[in-house]
Amino acid sequence: MIDDLQTTLRIELPLTQHLGIKVSSVEPGQVTLAAPLAGNHNHTGSAFAGSINAIATLAGWSWVWAALRREGLSAQVVIQDSSIVYDRPVTTDFRATCVAPEPVALTRFLTALRRRGRGRITLHTEVADLAGPAAAFRGRYVAQAL
Amino acid sequence: MIDDLQTTLRIELPLTQHLGIKVSSVEPGQVTLAAPLAGNHNHTGSAFAGSINAIATLAGWSWVWAALRREGLSAQVVIQDSSIVYDRPVTTDFRATCVAPEPVALTRFLTALRRRGRGRITLHTEVADLAGPAAAFRGRYVAQAL
Repeated sequence: MIDDLQTTLRIELPLTQHLGIKVSSVEPGQVTLAAPLAGNHNHTGSAFAGSINAIATLAGWSWVWAALRREGLSAQVVIQDSSIVYDRPVTTDFRATCVAPEPVALTRFLTALRRRGRGRITLHTEVADLAGPAAAFRGRYVAQAL
Repeated sequence: MIDDLQTTLRIELPLTQHLGIKVSSVEPGQVTLAAPLAGNHNHTGSAFAGSINAIATLAGWSWVWAALRREGLSAQVVIQDSSIVYDRPVTTDFRATCVAPEPVALTRFLTALRRRGRGRITLHTEVADLAGPAAAFRGRYVAQAL
């Protein structure tokens, strides 16, 4: 699943190549993407907020992509809204980990998608560098059945 | 001021070149940045949410940069937190316009920065394509005197 997701991101989201994003792990419990500091740094030498937000947005999107694949569902997934807190500068290579939602939320999402062709789910992603957590992201994603 | 800001973004934030961001206008009342859809599109052919968020983040940052310059203040500016609503897909080249805050908020920000060496300000940015507004962004920025 790691290779499939990496290929999907590369083909469907060309900016991920500029961000240097690599898929680290794809598990039911979490999806982790990684990015280098080089090329993503800002005027202070730490990671640009736009890069941090982008990898977090993609980690959540990837989690939904993987969950739909496991269920054999075909849907277009987009983000509806998000918020992020940048707790401290990201000063090394970094990663974004989206954790699975509560089982009841996943069930509700899949049921809505199957029954009404459309489901929404809120996911939480943490961005961390080698020193630990640095940013907390929440994104709401919408899947539309194809 | 447009050329200075464009140079600052290019040198200090290399990703802005990959995003193709150009400075359109820098006025006390608003700062507008523009980006092409090409290179920023996602799997649906519309603009990638990460690119929309990045240009919005930068529009607010640029507004603070310009305000500090007008005041002759030297400070490092970073974003502390943000939220965004993606109202509809961005299907053409797009732009992000950060509008000036209420005068009282600007005064409070500048006074805190001068007196305590640190000020915070919340800014609103709208992202629009040729069909009109498409995303609404709020960002809180922190300036630390140098």
